[in-house]
Amino acid sequence: MLSSVERRIEQFVASLEEPEIAESIAKIPAGKRLRARLMIEIAGSGQSVIDTAAIIEMIHAASLLHDDVIDDAFTRRGVASINALYGNKSAIMIGDILYSKAFYELVDIDRFVAKVVSNAVVQLSIGERKDVAMSEHFSVDREAYITMIYQKTAALIEAASEAAAILAGKDREIYRTYGRNLGIAFQMIDDILDIVSDSQTLGKPALNDFVEGKTTLPYIYLYQELESDEKEQLKAMHRRQLSKSEQEWILAKLSEHKVIERAKKEAFSLIEEAIELMQKAGEKGLEAIAVKMVDRSF
Amino acid sequence: MLSSVERRIEQFVASLEEPEIAESIAKIPAGKRLRARLMIEIAGSGQSVIDTAAIIEMIHAASLLHDDVIDDAFTRRGVASINALYGNKSAIMIGDILYSKAFYELVDIDRFVAKVVSNAVVQLSIGERKDVAMSEHFSVDREAYITMIYQKTAALIEAASEAAAILAGKDREIYRTYGRNLGIAFQMIDDILDIVSDSQTLGKPALNDFVEGKTTLPYIYLYQELESDEKEQLKAMHRRQLSKSEQEWILAKLSEHKVIERAKKEAFSLIEEAIELMQKAGEKGLEAIAVKMVDRSF
Repeated sequence: MLSSVERRIEQFVASLEEPEIAESIAKIPAGKRLRARLMIEIAGSGQSVIDTAAIIEMIHAASLLHDDVIDDAFTRRGVASINALYGNKSAIMIGDILYSKAFYELVDIDRFVAKVVSNAVVQLSIGERKDVAMSEHFSVDREAYITMIYQKTAALIEAASEAAAILAGKDREIYRTYGRNLGIAFQMIDDILDIVSDSQTLGKPALNDFVEGKTTLPYIYLYQELESDEKEQLKAMHRRQLSKSEQEWILAKLSEHKVIERAKKEAFSLIEEAIELMQKAGEKGLEAIAVKMVDRSF
Repeated sequence: MLSSVERRIEQFVASLEEPEIAESIAKIPAGKRLRARLMIEIAGSGQSVIDTAAIIEMIHAASLLHDDVIDDAFTRRGVASINALYGNKSAIMIGDILYSKAFYELVDIDRFVAKVVSNAVVQLSIGERKDVAMSEHFSVDREAYITMIYQKTAALIEAASEAAAILAGKDREIYRTYGRNLGIAFQMIDDILDIVSDSQTLGKPALNDFVEGKTTLPYIYLYQELESDEKEQLKAMHRRQLSKSEQEWILAKLSEHKVIERAKKEAFSLIEEAIELMQKAGEKGLEAIAVKMVDRSF
């Protein structure tokens, strides 16, 4: 059924009647289409579901194009990003075209669905801004971090689930919670993987997030555990290239204070809550998607 | 009545509940608010008109933020642009927040109005892309140029007029044509001013558009008039810094072939058509706005 979403995206893009632009858009990697997948699982593959899923995936693609410019990211899903291939300006412009076409099509969708989806885009734009702003200083405010990843990552997954529930006449609140929990856990796990996955070049974690100024959940918990002189030491390493010994110090401290376990536990408990909701609702497919997220890369 | 639009924009921004973002947005110069002015002139100042005008002005502001990044423009309306003040990334992010908030509010507006406005945003995004793509080569296709400036500049002015006509229960087609003609003429005049206005530093026209690769209407007409060896000469000067003698050659040729007059005449005839439409409709205020555009800076 995901192929119907792909076809619908192609149709939306083709209706712009700009072959050269369609060609650039066709080069954007499709990704896992998690949001569309969730929608079809919740609401089936009727036309309005496919339309809304296509719109949400176009919005997601547009946001990634802009994020990669903002984060100076040159790869995305293991291949060169659009800004790396065609420059930042093209990435901004293609993003704007995808966003505006998605909104144009959203006007024809159920009004409640349109409100939910457009609100999520506001949230994700604000979230991206906060992510950048927070990385400019050493931020260890857990609440601010959770709000930011909710806005940046979870809001659109939450909106996809809620929109599908509206279209299927199911309970909005349950699916909304499911999507939100999955989204927040997804970002938490992503942030943990940055610390526990070996970089290909280094053979050990590169701690990229911390180097870029992003003090994700493990760093927030680590800061809470450190002695006051160690706190200063960690702060002094923030947002700059790390020496080998600095990297090792951070990894040792993270391990000493079992911070990764704590962060994982927090992500998993969100996923567990999502699984329980789906068990009660008899949603085997959605349960399986949540279970799979736990297995992701550990 | 324009102050109602300003207040509405402030309210929309305040409802994001992000004071720091509101502060950045407040620093964007308001400009002439041409689109809002036209709307109020056409449809009065009822709530739905003010709402739609505020939405359209937010969209316009967002598009300028992104355009200035794409065009490497460091001033806007005589003051430092947002990208110059806060960097390209902030300009992209603030633009995305304004766009998405505008679309979120658009969902609550009349469906036909929402369709007209969102279609214009698609057009202006495509127009901006074409403007950049066309400047990369020596383009002297008049049709392509007119289509591009229609999309880039006129589409949103056209949409503002048409949206106001819908809200006021007036004839959509007449106001649509009025807005489109005004918008195309506005851009043509802008392009002419780049050639006839003295630059502050040089004391004569800097021909910035041509240096940036933009072959606007006067260059298209000039190319048609030149001998074939002169055609090659002009082409060879495209999209690079010009020497003093090259600048003088271009200005002399433009003058010899009365190309500026021809381009002005074309812009003025669009405005005349707009004026006639408004005379027939008994719209004195809109007639005056069109008349004023002719006087703009010549």
